[in-house]
Amino acid sequence: MSGLATRCELELPAWVGGFVERWGAPLDSPRAGMRLAIALATQNIEHDSGGPFAAVVLDEAARRVVAVGVNQVTASGLSIAHAEIVALSLAQQRLGDWNLAREARLTLVTTCEPCAMCFGALPWSGVRRLVCGARQEDAEAAGFDEGDKPADWVASLVARGIEVERDVLRTETRALFGAYRRLGGEIYNVGADGAGDS
Amino acid sequence: MSGLATRCELELPAWVGGFVERWGAPLDSPRAGMRLAIALATQNIEHDSGGPFAAVVLDEAARRVVAVGVNQVTASGLSIAHAEIVALSLAQQRLGDWNLAREARLTLVTTCEPCAMCFGALPWSGVRRLVCGARQEDAEAAGFDEGDKPADWVASLVARGIEVERDVLRTETRALFGAYRRLGGEIYNVGADGAGDS
Repeated sequence: MSGLATRCELELPAWVGGFVERWGAPLDSPRAGMRLAIALATQNIEHDSGGPFAAVVLDEAARRVVAVGVNQVTASGLSIAHAEIVALSLAQQRLGDWNLAREARLTLVTTCEPCAMCFGALPWSGVRRLVCGARQEDAEAAGFDEGDKPADWVASLVARGIEVERDVLRTETRALFGAYRRLGGEIYNVGADGAGDS
Repeated sequence: MSGLATRCELELPAWVGGFVERWGAPLDSPRAGMRLAIALATQNIEHDSGGPFAAVVLDEAARRVVAVGVNQVTASGLSIAHAEIVALSLAQQRLGDWNLAREARLTLVTTCEPCAMCFGALPWSGVRRLVCGARQEDAEAAGFDEGDKPADWVASLVARGIEVERDVLRTETRALFGAYRRLGGEIYNVGADGAGDS
């Protein structure tokens, strides 16, 4: 079976580390975390390094960023590389545990409501709070496909011990889609029958 | 932001490459692919290298394996490292494209019906056919949590151009859960409120 790939990686673009390092604003609230996520998504668009989505794993009690993610689907060549998956995985990598709940009560701040895959990934990650900017319908209006989630996806997360807060800086996060289009960003889709990404 | 992780990787256990290389049986049907997947899950249990789940990406027309995956959640420390995610990502890595549909009409053969995350990941991957062994209720009866999928998840995939075949070697795939338990495998869960993995 020569040619079988045995490993692949999720990696942030080179600009991210320094950008987060220089981020001087306090990280004392989900809204403050969302401002960082918006800035990361904006940079991702401007660097042409991926889709208009970013996410931040916050330790709200410690007021620190544990990990960040930006959409890296086209850059990495991996369809799983949504901002939320990248951020959660890098948080687990940093903390050395697939179950974030063992470390602290962590919050995932994301510029857009999770797609069906990222929704399904949340309970497995051990994150305890989800804070969303743009609504699913905002992403869909921009041409992105969010997949098929259970109609009561918020209630599903809550029942699994994950708090959900929506519409945080929704206007600003929704504006990311327009910025992406204006710069000619690719609204990539699997095929005519409709699969896309966020 | 010192300490920020910037990369992480999904990697197969060392035994997998040689095992697949030595696999002499023909791969001329989904059922034949399932036999390889069952053998991989069995090896994963016996090597204590992860949960009792495996998946194979098959090119049915070319009768070849494009990629394989075994559950690597505890081994990799990443909650996304389900067999299906590993197999799909390694297929994309091998083919150099996040959209498998651009390469060939590929089939994902998995020893168990996908959890909520893997269900959501399927349409983004470009895979065109899903072949499942054990049912969700078989995994749940063994203590695994499959998450909350839309009630009509099969119809959702079909509507997105992904054929679904279920119950292929169901008895044999279901038996993997018993083998895992007998060998003392961990049924890991995020917390008392119920999140697990497959």
